[in-house]
Formats: sequence, structure tokens, C-alpha cells
Amino acid sequence: MQSTQIYSGLVEKQSFTLPRYETVSGRLIKDVKVGWERYGQLNAAGDNAILVPHFYSANSHVAGRYKPDDALPGYWDSIIGSGKPLDTDRYCVIGVDALVNMNAKDGVTVTTGPASIDPDTGRPYGLNFPIVSIRDFVRVQKALLDALGVTKLVAVAGVSMGALQSYEWAAAYPEMVERVIAVNGTPSQRPFALCNLESWIAPIKADANWNHGDYYGKAEPIAGVTQALFNVLVAALHPEGIAATFQHRWADPSKSPLDALDHNYLVNHTFAANSLLRANTLVDANHMLYMTRANQLFVAGTPGSSVAADLSNIRAQVLVAQFRTDLLFPVADARAQVAQMQTNGTQAELVEIDSIGGHLGGVTEIDKAGDAMRAFLAR
Amino acid sequence: MQSTQIYSGLVEKQSFTLPRYETVSGRLIKDVKVGWERYGQLNAAGDNAILVPHFYSANSHVAGRYKPDDALPGYWDSIIGSGKPLDTDRYCVIGVDALVNMNAKDGVTVTTGPASIDPDTGRPYGLNFPIVSIRDFVRVQKALLDALGVTKLVAVAGVSMGALQSYEWAAAYPEMVERVIAVNGTPSQRPFALCNLESWIAPIKADANWNHGDYYGKAEPIAGVTQALFNVLVAALHPEGIAATFQHRWADPSKSPLDALDHNYLVNHTFAANSLLRANTLVDANHMLYMTRANQLFVAGTPGSSVAADLSNIRAQVLVAQFRTDLLFPVADARAQVAQMQTNGTQAELVEIDSIGGHLGGVTEIDKAGDAMRAFLAR
Repeated sequence: MQSTQIYSGLVEKQSFTLPRYETVSGRLIKDVKVGWERYGQLNAAGDNAILVPHFYSANSHVAGRYKPDDALPGYWDSIIGSGKPLDTDRYCVIGVDALVNMNAKDGVTVTTGPASIDPDTGRPYGLNFPIVSIRDFVRVQKALLDALGVTKLVAVAGVSMGALQSYEWAAAYPEMVERVIAVNGTPSQRPFALCNLESWIAPIKADANWNHGDYYGKAEPIAGVTQALFNVLVAALHPEGIAATFQHRWADPSKSPLDALDHNYLVNHTFAANSLLRANTLVDANHMLYMTRANQLFVAGTPGSSVAADLSNIRAQVLVAQFRTDLLFPVADARAQVAQMQTNGTQAELVEIDSIGGHLGGVTEIDKAGDAMRAFLAR
Repeated sequence: MQSTQIYSGLVEKQSFTLPRYETVSGRLIKDVKVGWERYGQLNAAGDNAILVPHFYSANSHVAGRYKPDDALPGYWDSIIGSGKPLDTDRYCVIGVDALVNMNAKDGVTVTTGPASIDPDTGRPYGLNFPIVSIRDFVRVQKALLDALGVTKLVAVAGVSMGALQSYEWAAAYPEMVERVIAVNGTPSQRPFALCNLESWIAPIKADANWNHGDYYGKAEPIAGVTQALFNVLVAALHPEGIAATFQHRWADPSKSPLDALDHNYLVNHTFAANSLLRANTLVDANHMLYMTRANQLFVAGTPGSSVAADLSNIRAQVLVAQFRTDLLFPVADARAQVAQMQTNGTQAELVEIDSIGGHLGGVTEIDKAGDAMRAFLAR
């Protein structure tokens, strides 16, 4: 099949600009930019695309490498490519950045948010940037797909916040979306998410350097972002996975936690170091706050979402792939939602996946859902 | 039975002093004080006592009222009293404070920790106070019971950290402890607890007012303690309980979270207000850090605990009452631990309790375990 291979594993980031965009909240943003990547070729009818919106802390780099010697490929590379479940020989897979992507500092992500320059003032928006919702993310993505000539989506597929966006796509553009593949994400946030997400990002607001969002060109709230990213790791992994990796080991075998408060455990040392690196090099504090708010606002039946409260406006076929150890979107909720969609007459099915990877298993072990995706796309 | 009622529902806080105590880590603390309360009468043989160590954020006020018009009784009042499962007509129930109790500022709790005056310097210890473990808590409690003339414990019963202390009692003093009643707590912390607990208290260390523990007589790290208590609420409740109480309601019905970052949700507003009140009036920051470390150190087979790694030195009969919605000590772990104890020849049984109260259900709905406790004590 090598002869038909039209995506080699190399990809480049592209940028899309929308001159004016009016948010769900009624505010105007000029010069909206989001990044995107393409794996495979769009056909002449424009009806062979699969869109992959990204998860909370990721970006549009969902597969492939920019250079052959990149250390790691995009996060769903195991299922996107020639002959893989999202088969780039047949489908044009498109990764796309969300508004207010938190990796605004990484030099690769293309997004628009509080760290962007407000064309009217020549300075970063800060908290003057309007609050945006998952619904806004999807409306901007729709403009991109229109510009690319995409007429039909074979599927919208995503993990976590990518799943939220997939449901939003199906509800907002039912005539365009044939299938939803939702991994570890639901058509509506639980009230628990409101306070759980708030506890994640509280350290940013508490950091004096945050300065109510006005820190551009000054010292950044690195400590707050570091702790916020630490909190996300604790929540997104699963206790069994943490136990397998770290046990109860100390950060320094010569420094017992019984002897001083600053003698800590390896798991905390590791998470803190990883989080500090990402806070320094990738994550913008305001973007993380706005991204979090967008996730809080994704509640079916409210302005942050196009999904009907009873899910009755989901018309696409739906495959839910749910990791059983996910503590953020529990399998019990996935079961209830699939049952609700079936009651509504939606063709929805649930595949439950065993893993000790927790919520993040939907990224790190997504190959476990590959066969189910392949079969689902063949129907 | 009114004639035999020897505890009326009124109680007073008492204080116990240990002139010198050497910690598990080998440090000496002088003039150790802990509070305690007694409900019912100790018999002449000193063998009818039930000890109730407290949970993470509580104190020794486990039942009764100090004055008839107190708004609320102690936290397990529904199961402690005349004719209740822990029947004060038969048993002498004793509540006891832990070292480094976090409610050091409340004017009632009697404890010793970083906020206490170091007799050698005349100033608060701060971080010079030695790290203490659950094992230390129990050793100080043993000294109290010796002083009171308690020779035998019919049971040690506790919820959460109270359950941890109950296991520790059984392992440390097997000749004295006949029964363990462990509600929503395990004989060993999971590695997950190390990072989860760390994420709770990180805001304290990040608060500039904390000043490496040196804040006595200065501005306290109230913001950090407030956020830490917020985090505990999110973790100790259950998503279903949060949904039932708060739904997705906004803090102010006229201020949509879609319009500004500081327009927030009712659940966050409520948790923050409750946490701020407690930070201002009850909780000492250093005590909360030390209490957290004690919980991290409670790992079977390590110096922070007397419990054998395989639980083989638990000889008391054990009743485990486990709320199925507890996310901190999951029912699966309780099942495995009870099975392990049974394999070891320990008489251990598990009662699983339905509730949407989560981990805190072991406090707020402890009456649901009452019948099981009554039957267990009758054996």
C-alpha cells in the first residue's frame, strides 16, 4: 500500500486567520488566529476529513513530526497515519488549535487569547480578552474548515476537552458531522468540574505576579502556573499508575520526610520539576485561566454549549471510548450518557477500556481504542 | 433505662500534659499537651473504654455539647450516647486530640505543635517543631490512657485519619486493643495520597505570608490556608453530593461566568467563604502542614506506622465501614485490605455503605454504620 501513502509522517504547522469573530458572549475579536495541521489529502468533494480538536493542555500537533529527529510525535500518533485506525491514506485528518490555548509561549502553538496583542491598543489583551467557550472554539474551527473546502466530516474525534469539542461540533453542525468519537469526555460537565477545575487554577490567581492578569513584560506568575500544572497531573493520572511509577520513594534517599518538612517524596519532586519546566517554557497563566473557564462553561443546555440538555440534538453516530480508571469523566457517566442518546434514537455505543493510566490513558494508551475506532469508521 | 444514664449529653474539654515526649524521629518535645473528652464512666477495672481519635480537620469533640445551647454537638454525636451504638451507659467513650491539630486557633482545641511556645526559647516553635507521625499521635494518646487508668480498649473507632490511628493503635498495642472500627480509612496510605495531600497544602507554602513558617505575631498566610481548605472540601465530598447541593448555579444570578473571569459559580463561592472563615478563626497554617505530613508518613512497614506491611500484626477484631462514594479511600482498597487481614487470620469484616456524601459521609452520615457497630461490639 506504500504507493497510496500520501502522508509521510512529517507535518507542518499552519495558521488560519479570521479577521473578525463575534463571541457567544457578544464581544468582537479582530484578527483571530488558530494553528492547524493536516495529515492526508482532502478529496475534491471535501468530504473525507476527520477533525481532531485537542485536549486541555495540548495543541493541534496530534500526529507526526515536524522534523525527522523530533523526540516525540504528536500525541495521537499511534492511531493517525497510513494504515492506522484514522487512516491518512483514506482520510484527511486535521488537527486544530483552540482559542486561548494555554501553550501560548511554546513558539509553535498558534492561538488567540489574553496574551495576544489587541490590535486596538497594540498591547496584550490581558483580562480584557472576552471569555470564550467551547462553543466559540468550534465556531472558529468551522470557519477554518469552510476556508479549506471541507464539506463533510467523516468524524470529529477527541480526548477529554477534545471530546467536549466533538460533541459541540455534532450539536452545532449536525448536517456536517457524520460521527463523533469521544474519548474520556462527556457532552456536559458535572457541577463537580466547576470546583475541581477551580482548585486547579487557584494558585495562579493567588500568585502576586499574576497581578490580575497584567504581567506581560514583567515577572510572570511562574510559581502559580507550576502548582496549577502539578494539580492537573494529580487529577489526570490514576492512583494505580502513580503507585506503579513512584511507590512511596523519597525524592532524595538520604533525606527522610520524617526529618524535615522540605524533605519530600519522589512523586512530588517529579511532578513539580515537570510542571516548573512547562510553566517556564510553554504555559501562559491567563490562557490557562481562560481555558479552564471554557471547560467550566461547557454545560449542555446553556450558552457555553450547543448540546441540548437531554442530548436530543446529537444526530451523528457516536462512539464513546471510556477508560475505566478515568476519575475526571467516570465510566458511570459515560454509560448513562450513551443510554440517554440511545433512548433519543442516536446511534451511540460505548467501549470501556482497562488501563491504570487514568484520564490521561486516553492520550498515552489511545492505541487500545484503535480497533473500535477502525470498526466504527467502517460502518 | 434513664436511671443508668451516666452521660447527659454535656461534656467538657480536659487537658493532659506529658512533661517529655521523644518522637519517632528521635526528637524531644517538652510539656506536650493534648485535649480529651469523656462520655460515660470508666469502670473500676478500666476495661470498658472506647477511644475515638479524630479525623484530619476535627478535634476531640466527638460528641455532646459544652453548653445546652451549642448550635452543634460533636461530630459523631449520632452514634455516641446513652442507648446509641457506642453506648455511654456501658462504655466510657473518650475523644482525644492529636498532636499538631490544625484547629490550634479555635480557642477550644488543646494540642502541641509549631504554634506552641517552645519552653526553651519562649517563642513559637514554627518549623523547629519536629515532624510527627500518626505513630507519635498514638504514643501520646497511650500515655493519656495510662494516666486515666484505662487497661483495655473495647474498641478504637475513627473515621479517616481517625481510622488510620485506630489501625496504628491495634498494631502498636495489640494486648490492649480488642477491636478496631475503621470508617473510610486504611491501614496504609497509597502513593497517590502523597501527591494528593501535597496539592492540598501547596497554597500555604506559596503564600508569602507563610514565610517558611515564621509568621507568628505577623500577618498570617490566610489566603493559602483558605485555598488549602477549599481543596480539602473538593476532595472529601462526592460529585453527586456537590451536584445535589449546588447544581451549576452562579454565585450571583446577575453575573454570568460567560461575561468575566471573576463571575464565578455558587459552589466555588460557598466553598471559598466557608474556607476563609475557618482559616481566619480555626486553622493554623503550620499545623495543617504538619498534620498533612503525618498523613503522608502513615505507610505500613515504615517508621511512620507500626502496622506491618502485610497487616499481619493486626490482632484485634476489625470492622471496616466503607462509604462506597469515598474517593480518598476507595472501597476496592477496603475490600483488598479486609481480604488480606482475613488471610492473615484476623477477624475482619467489611460493611459497605451507600451515600452521595463521599469521604465526608463517614462524618455526616455515620448513623448509617450504627447498626453494624452495635452488632460488632456485641460480639
